[in-house]
Amino acid sequence: MVLKKITVKASDEYDIIIGKDLIHDCYEYIKTAVKSDCFAVITDDNVDEFYGNTVVSSLKNNGKTVCKLVFPHGEASKSTLTLNSIYEFLCENNITRTDCIIALGGGVTGDIAGFAAATYLRGIDYVQIPTSLLAQVDSSVGGKTAVDLPGGKNLVGAFKQPKLVLCDTGVLKTLPRDYFVDGMGEVIKYGMIKSAELFEILENHDIESIHSVLDEVILKCISIKRDIVEEDEFDKGERMLLNFGHTIGHSIEKYYNFSGISHGMAVASGMKIITRNTEDKNITKKGVYNKLVLCLAKYYLNEIINPPVSELIPACLNDKKREGGFINIIICEDIGKSFYKKLSFDEFTGFMN
Amino acid sequence: MVLKKITVKASDEYDIIIGKDLIHDCYEYIKTAVKSDCFAVITDDNVDEFYGNTVVSSLKNNGKTVCKLVFPHGEASKSTLTLNSIYEFLCENNITRTDCIIALGGGVTGDIAGFAAATYLRGIDYVQIPTSLLAQVDSSVGGKTAVDLPGGKNLVGAFKQPKLVLCDTGVLKTLPRDYFVDGMGEVIKYGMIKSAELFEILENHDIESIHSVLDEVILKCISIKRDIVEEDEFDKGERMLLNFGHTIGHSIEKYYNFSGISHGMAVASGMKIITRNTEDKNITKKGVYNKLVLCLAKYYLNEIINPPVSELIPACLNDKKREGGFINIIICEDIGKSFYKKLSFDEFTGFMN
Repeated sequence: MVLKKITVKASDEYDIIIGKDLIHDCYEYIKTAVKSDCFAVITDDNVDEFYGNTVVSSLKNNGKTVCKLVFPHGEASKSTLTLNSIYEFLCENNITRTDCIIALGGGVTGDIAGFAAATYLRGIDYVQIPTSLLAQVDSSVGGKTAVDLPGGKNLVGAFKQPKLVLCDTGVLKTLPRDYFVDGMGEVIKYGMIKSAELFEILENHDIESIHSVLDEVILKCISIKRDIVEEDEFDKGERMLLNFGHTIGHSIEKYYNFSGISHGMAVASGMKIITRNTEDKNITKKGVYNKLVLCLAKYYLNEIINPPVSELIPACLNDKKREGGFINIIICEDIGKSFYKKLSFDEFTGFMN
Repeated sequence: MVLKKITVKASDEYDIIIGKDLIHDCYEYIKTAVKSDCFAVITDDNVDEFYGNTVVSSLKNNGKTVCKLVFPHGEASKSTLTLNSIYEFLCENNITRTDCIIALGGGVTGDIAGFAAATYLRGIDYVQIPTSLLAQVDSSVGGKTAVDLPGGKNLVGAFKQPKLVLCDTGVLKTLPRDYFVDGMGEVIKYGMIKSAELFEILENHDIESIHSVLDEVILKCISIKRDIVEEDEFDKGERMLLNFGHTIGHSIEKYYNFSGISHGMAVASGMKIITRNTEDKNITKKGVYNKLVLCLAKYYLNEIINPPVSELIPACLNDKKREGGFINIIICEDIGKSFYKKLSFDEFTGFMN
């Protein structure tokens, strides 16, 4: 098996291991990073069906004590309600400070299990096994953990680095296409903000052929995020670039009440709305918007979702990225080149009109 | 006004200001540490009645935007339920990353408002205004924040340093005597673990006369805690000494379902149980137990609460300080001298019998 390894040097140093089918022997990798005797696997019902037993068996076959909590899949589970059920589960199973949580699943699982790991007993170890493309390229890297509130996404959270991330690219085969498409939104974002080379690979492939270069693509995305996170772990500057398309994207998700629209789709629309706008204003090089639209189309990310921008603005101004009366927006001046700009609420409203 | 100031150099550096009646002009001190325009005051109904308006007025008179959340007093409020109501309150009031939480109240308020500050938007600034003796000498120093779970106290939490702590010793006059007694449990603990000099002051006073030297006593307690926290912010060694009497104390509180018994009383009993035991085993110098009992009696902390030790052991083994199959216990060998010892569950059970 050919494995790729990326080391992240954040406040805690940890490895991300990328390879096909490594989930079957996951404990072989886990044991290099974690010395616990007892593991709490947290996953959703979709993922549990495919990989719950695989992970539990690998741990049990190595003599480890394992308990498992399965919650219903979907963003609705990323709530304080699920969080409390995780806390109680950890408590009932006598999980101590030297034990370890395994977050097995997509972004929702990684975020909520990671937040539980950050806060239960003021912090215990956790390992991420992301099973969606989105989670592999995005939410499993960088140590941001979160739950949603009724008032918005990710409004409660913590910075908590995992001890290890295992990216099994083989599991992406079992993903329904919509989930794969969802992840491609973030993949294209990485090309837009930081890598013309990655963007070129993406525009030269499509939803089918991309699979032949997927390991390389995932590695590139994770490397970009790693570099950014190492420079700005606590999200005070450079890291904001990762939010390209996200302020508007989040407000689109909110507009649709987080249903019927994927995160990737919302981010894709967010990237389009802001780039059309900045190209009109000559901040972005002519032609970038068109290249973005064509590339998104190759990955089924160009569907028409166009809530009126004026209705998105109030939610944008309520985004957690705002600071006092200001909001930071991310702008691509060219493919692979981006920067952030601080605007007052009035400037932002004017800017978007 | 004579003010005392202690600077804590933890992962974030901050000041603790001690003085009589400084709450009335609290913004004068807050403005040196925090630049926010908007403040969320979090307090309980008891404290609100005495000081809610005082704090809000000081902020408003200086042109600040202020919102206030009042929850019912008592340990029962240190729950995920109250926490969620705080999150929703912050959200509804559009509190952003550059705004600031004011935790106004005793230990419960400081712990839960501090945890909200640690996790809302992945962390915003907060200021502690502790209004009980216990909170002034203990929970406002050191950056530990927490909420309780049905399974036990402080099982969810985070390390989060405040930007400033304001200890108004004048407010202790409005404390009901039971609350004052409660705090004296921790004050005596500081003498036991680190300072024969402090212990001597305590045994030479009583519940009435101690008020004449209270500023000095509070300063000494905070200094001890500050020194320990600076050495071991994340609770891996030296800081464990602060748990003297607490593992058994917590299990006593649990045994009584956290009602009818104060934290100070439980810790006092915990200190007595462990010290009687270690003195019997010649680990503690002869006579220390007796001095402890006499000193506790002067502060109404020697009431007979003696749940059978055997019934406390299971809860002790479930304490969050346990590590795998081991538990750390804190032992005083002499007044002002303490150390910690790691015992297996079996050793601990044997030790306590």
